[in-house]
Amino acid sequence: MSMDEETGPQGIARVEAFSDGVIAIIITIMVLELKAPVEEGLGALAALWPTFLAYGLSYAYVAIYWVNHHRLFGHARRVSNGLLWANMALLFTLSLVPFATAYLGEHHFGRDATVIYLSAMLLPAVSYGLLQSAVMRDEGDTAAARRYLVASRRKGHAANAVYLLGMALAFVSPWLGIACAGLVAVFWCLPASRLDHLFLKGSG
Amino acid sequence: MSMDEETGPQGIARVEAFSDGVIAIIITIMVLELKAPVEEGLGALAALWPTFLAYGLSYAYVAIYWVNHHRLFGHARRVSNGLLWANMALLFTLSLVPFATAYLGEHHFGRDATVIYLSAMLLPAVSYGLLQSAVMRDEGDTAAARRYLVASRRKGHAANAVYLLGMALAFVSPWLGIACAGLVAVFWCLPASRLDHLFLKGSG
Amino acid sequence: MSMDEETGPQGIARVEAFSDGVIAIIITIMVLELKAPVEEGLGALAALWPTFLAYGLSYAYVAIYWVNHHRLFGHARRVSNGLLWANMALLFTLSLVPFATAYLGEHHFGRDATVIYLSAMLLPAVSYGLLQSAVMRDEGDTAAARRYLVASRRKGHAANAVYLLGMALAFVSPWLGIACAGLVAVFWCLPASRLDHLFLKGSG
Amino acid sequence: MSMDEETGPQGIARVEAFSDGVIAIIITIMVLELKAPVEEGLGALAALWPTFLAYGLSYAYVAIYWVNHHRLFGHARRVSNGLLWANMALLFTLSLVPFATAYLGEHHFGRDATVIYLSAMLLPAVSYGLLQSAVMRDEGDTAAARRYLVASRRKGHAANAVYLLGMALAFVSPWLGIACAGLVAVFWCLPASRLDHLFLKGSG
Repeated sequence: MSMDEETGPQGIARVEAFSDGVIAIIITIMVLELKAPVEEGLGALAALWPTFLAYGLSYAYVAIYWVNHHRLFGHARRVSNGLLWANMALLFTLSLVPFATAYLGEHHFGRDATVIYLSAMLLPAVSYGLLQSAVMRDEGDTAAARRYLVASRRKGHAANAVYLLGMALAFVSPWLGIACAGLVAVFWCLPASRLDHLFLKGSG
Repeated sequence: MSMDEETGPQGIARVEAFSDGVIAIIITIMVLELKAPVEEGLGALAALWPTFLAYGLSYAYVAIYWVNHHRLFGHARRVSNGLLWANMALLFTLSLVPFATAYLGEHHFGRDATVIYLSAMLLPAVSYGLLQSAVMRDEGDTAAARRYLVASRRKGHAANAVYLLGMALAFVSPWLGIACAGLVAVFWCLPASRLDHLFLKGSG
Repeated sequence: MSMDEETGPQGIARVEAFSDGVIAIIITIMVLELKAPVEEGLGALAALWPTFLAYGLSYAYVAIYWVNHHRLFGHARRVSNGLLWANMALLFTLSLVPFATAYLGEHHFGRDATVIYLSAMLLPAVSYGLLQSAVMRDEGDTAAARRYLVASRRKGHAANAVYLLGMALAFVSPWLGIACAGLVAVFWCLPASRLDHLFLKGSG
Repeated sequence: MSMDEETGPQGIARVEAFSDGVIAIIITIMVLELKAPVEEGLGALAALWPTFLAYGLSYAYVAIYWVNHHRLFGHARRVSNGLLWANMALLFTLSLVPFATAYLGEHHFGRDATVIYLSAMLLPAVSYGLLQSAVMRDEGDTAAARRYLVASRRKGHAANAVYLLGMALAFVSPWLGIACAGLVAVFWCLPASRLDHLFLKGSG
């Protein structure tokens, strides 16, 4: 055994704990962008709606990643070097979400801001794919793992396709792009069992 | 068993750990609003009292939610899809508290700011109700669980009623609204056993 | 047994985890006050020394509280209502340290700023005393617990006395006040066994 | 046994948890420096490249320290006073990284900023050395521990030498200094087993 790779649940628990910490900070740091308006009255508050909407959308996005991360690590058996760095890459790409969110809110869902926001949503998908491969490499080729992997990858590909579609549609209207991001959020929050049914059709 | 629902204490522990992280950040992020005055002297510092008071009130509010969350999860048996998303909704609504707090402090407890602050206090109550239902659905119909649920729901309803009353009274004077928020804080900090006695009368 | 008080190590572990999160945020939030100067060159950087010094001093102060909290919870047996709220009070008073630190750094260790800083150092001592009592109430009257309590209380009283002395000396020169805060920091970092020897003399 | 030193894995787990919290905050706090530009368009965004590059470099740096900390604590047996304070010193020196990063990004990789940045990279190395000694003192003189220590110290010395070289080269061109920091980052991310092979040659 190489001396830098722990086996067993302790090592995995600490990687989870660190990831939880970073994701918790990412998800709440965005709220710092919600600056209380200096002017009195509800009008000044209502004018902040783009910032609020951008925050809500990104909160859902990061929350979905946490839930998926949580489920993926239920399959992790070993803290390999690949897992450690793929996880760090995922946390890094997620850490750019608050920036993209602030940019979207400040530029009131303009075309450029929407395209940049949707691109930022695609980056974590790449590192999540690497993390999935690292976890699956050690998981063993059980039927449950294979089923999980297939369903999870298909859902990921579908989400990425919708984001890419959103980037194209943003050139027609930014709101079509945002609608795509909203659609992905709703779609991930549905019970996995119902979706798995859909995505596993013909792969069982 | 659906493949995305873990059973057992490991899954619950990670949901608790993530929630602890988010709540810890929410409760301390508010302190960033306490900006050191540039002017010398105690007068400039004393002029910050509305910000300090708003911080203290919101700190107590979030602390109470943490304590309740902690007690509720003592009854959780399984990380269902419903529990995961109700918990995410609770954390989201709590994450708006720092914004409402900054707004209250900056507008020196004006009428509008007080009404908005009290409304923000009502939002987490809704998601907490959903979380309670999700936990209780899996908990089994034991007498202890039923007693806890009844006492906890009644206390929640009482707190919400006081917040609604505060919103009405804020139109007379904002300070009556703030007094209602303070009353709820004091009331939750009392030992639960004494209150349970009060709220369980006739339901035993 | 009252239904809102858990026994056993799980409840205590979650209170520790939440406290760790809050203290970790408090200790690192102060670094946000270290703003990179806009001007080029080492002179502009060197002019920041009061902010750096204030940060270092407060970092040591919060670190000492974490170490003491860690040791105190080694004696905790039960999450009572008193323990929960004394712990919340401790975290609240510690959360005011970043504000006092920023104030001290921005006002370049002026007299008023030094007195306010030293007062802010005294607040957590009060809530820590309450927490100590809450832990000790359930700990049982073992010899080890009594020894720990006696040594720990004496050290706390000595530190408070030095802070009070510092507040008085700050009217002569703020630097005498800061020296007192530094003295307490050095004194707590020494190995406890050596100090206990000093503080337990005659109480064995 | 001295009364302030816990043995066993519980104490170590809490030190790890606190360190994870602090490192998670340090690594994500830097993202707050990525401020969304007020001007519309991709040009304004592209002008932020120095800030993005500085963030990426520092993220890798702190991530490497977390991975090393994680591996080192796999050898920890006891929470000694030395371990506690060496760990606090490591967290303190790491907490200065966001400041040095902001300084580097704001001054567009100027010579002074690059030298300061590389110096800030050297500080945690000193406290990490102390932490390593504290862990090793209690670890016992097993062959695995000795092998780990030797490989780990040599890698640390090599990294420090590259940083020092970078500081010298920054006087020729800041980019040579930055290249050295990048080199160290790439070098640490490689699988340890391959590097250990290199660094343990002749020490087996």
